[in-house]
Amino acid sequence: MAAAAPAPATAPTRTPVSSSFFPSSRAVSFCSGTYRPNHSAAAASASAPWWRRRDPAVSVAAGSAQSAPGALAVDPKVDTLLDSVKWDSKGLAVAIAQNVDTGAILMQGFANKEALAKTISTRKATFFSRSRSSLWTKGETSMNFINVHDIFLDCDRDSIIYLGKPDGPTCHTGAETCYYTSVYDALQGLKHNKDRQVTSTLYSLEDTISRRHEETVTEGSGKPSWTKKLLLDNQLLCSKIREEAGELIQTLLENEDQSRTASEMADLLYHAMVLLRVKDVKMEEVLEVLRRRFSQSGIEEKASRNKS
Amino acid sequence: MAAAAPAPATAPTRTPVSSSFFPSSRAVSFCSGTYRPNHSAAAASASAPWWRRRDPAVSVAAGSAQSAPGALAVDPKVDTLLDSVKWDSKGLAVAIAQNVDTGAILMQGFANKEALAKTISTRKATFFSRSRSSLWTKGETSMNFINVHDIFLDCDRDSIIYLGKPDGPTCHTGAETCYYTSVYDALQGLKHNKDRQVTSTLYSLEDTISRRHEETVTEGSGKPSWTKKLLLDNQLLCSKIREEAGELIQTLLENEDQSRTASEMADLLYHAMVLLRVKDVKMEEVLEVLRRRFSQSGIEEKASRNKS
Repeated sequence: MAAAAPAPATAPTRTPVSSSFFPSSRAVSFCSGTYRPNHSAAAASASAPWWRRRDPAVSVAAGSAQSAPGALAVDPKVDTLLDSVKWDSKGLAVAIAQNVDTGAILMQGFANKEALAKTISTRKATFFSRSRSSLWTKGETSMNFINVHDIFLDCDRDSIIYLGKPDGPTCHTGAETCYYTSVYDALQGLKHNKDRQVTSTLYSLEDTISRRHEETVTEGSGKPSWTKKLLLDNQLLCSKIREEAGELIQTLLENEDQSRTASEMADLLYHAMVLLRVKDVKMEEVLEVLRRRFSQSGIEEKASRNKS
Repeated sequence: MAAAAPAPATAPTRTPVSSSFFPSSRAVSFCSGTYRPNHSAAAASASAPWWRRRDPAVSVAAGSAQSAPGALAVDPKVDTLLDSVKWDSKGLAVAIAQNVDTGAILMQGFANKEALAKTISTRKATFFSRSRSSLWTKGETSMNFINVHDIFLDCDRDSIIYLGKPDGPTCHTGAETCYYTSVYDALQGLKHNKDRQVTSTLYSLEDTISRRHEETVTEGSGKPSWTKKLLLDNQLLCSKIREEAGELIQTLLENEDQSRTASEMADLLYHAMVLLRVKDVKMEEVLEVLRRRFSQSGIEEKASRNKS
């Protein structure tokens, strides 16, 4: 897959930038500030849409919806891009917010042209509220903004992903994501549980390990599971991590088959994640470290320096 | 987060099941077959919606859209659940298909009541095509079905996630996902690239490592990056994996702070992923192993057996 510009490690700050801001060598697939200000007559026209006006009342900048006025002026390329989206009869397209580190789908709303323009320029996920008929930047009340690292359009150009990092829980209920009602759970008569959110495999595993950890506190009797044994015995856990790392390495050195490599990597990942739980570190924090490092070519730089 | 029933490892097969099929202890957050057949008079009525009829022309079962006729009869709970969704004025809700292992958003369409009912019963992601005004099961032409492991509704009950495993590329273009147009790339004048897809951090890192791997073949000169050095030197790579595993362990044994643990885990993960690249194993395959194992309490069982 192709590359992209380094990402800001946290909520991006952005000031009007020259074209030299766009690096030609791109390390990982996150983009940083991208628009180039264009102080055209059209941009200054009062009849132009707000994202083309330099209107203090609506202007936005520098990764903050509360930024200083007068900073917004948008490249005509933004207009062209906005026009290329297939807006529906109401001028809307589906907009999905996704956590850049975990891949969790946080929420789904709709964007109109202005909402997408504002998201592009402010890098705060912004939607069009159909009930209020107005723009709505997620976090403008709760302060739990979704800091957008990249935006994707689908092949039909009628669906948008805001790929970003949330400042806090996205759902108004306080849940991390709005998707916590499993249809199959509901059909079994199970009450929905905000802790039972839509998660992909890695985070389901993390949740399972966390539950085992809680059980080590609440449950005193019964035969403990392997995870619980590991959670309660640091020496055992450490020896297993060493052993699994050795077995992964062996699949390379002894040219074992690919399924063996996948299996040993799964073992290593699982045991290392138990250690993360003991240390109360979330996988999301690890991924954030990786993102920051790679956006600075950090691991490579650091590792290379270590070797020289 | 709470738990769920074990998932089928691949496309689930499903036969009518008794309530004893639903385990009370749930290992990971994937569900398996859930509906209980109900041969009510209503279900047999020709005036009932198709998902309540036992109509050979539309019946579906056992995780396959091509299954034997006559097998469908749906619990009234499904009707209740379908009625609880806030369908819009056209009877539609947004339906997003997400890869259960990687978290990648594969595509977005719309579902009506029938499409959701069919997805619940067949476990193949099914949508309502607005252009053709008909149900459309993703894969019915390409055979690249999306095998649904769980379905989530959002807090407003007007947005649906089909969490599943795709049989192959989802996009009609042959791309893994339909989202391969980065807005910020486009604004920089970069052509879109189907290999530059929406990816969260882990898979962006995997892509970066893959590009370095390709460069070791295509580029002969220049100072190689650290990743390239690792890719070209198995002994170096293996010694680094051992070293990073040791440093991760040290953060536990010497009670180092959490940021150190996150940092060392990032190092271990990165180096192990370079080994995966050398062995041509995708992280998705590793996660599939973890999902299969955890859905059978596999790791714990296996690991426990190893120790006894």
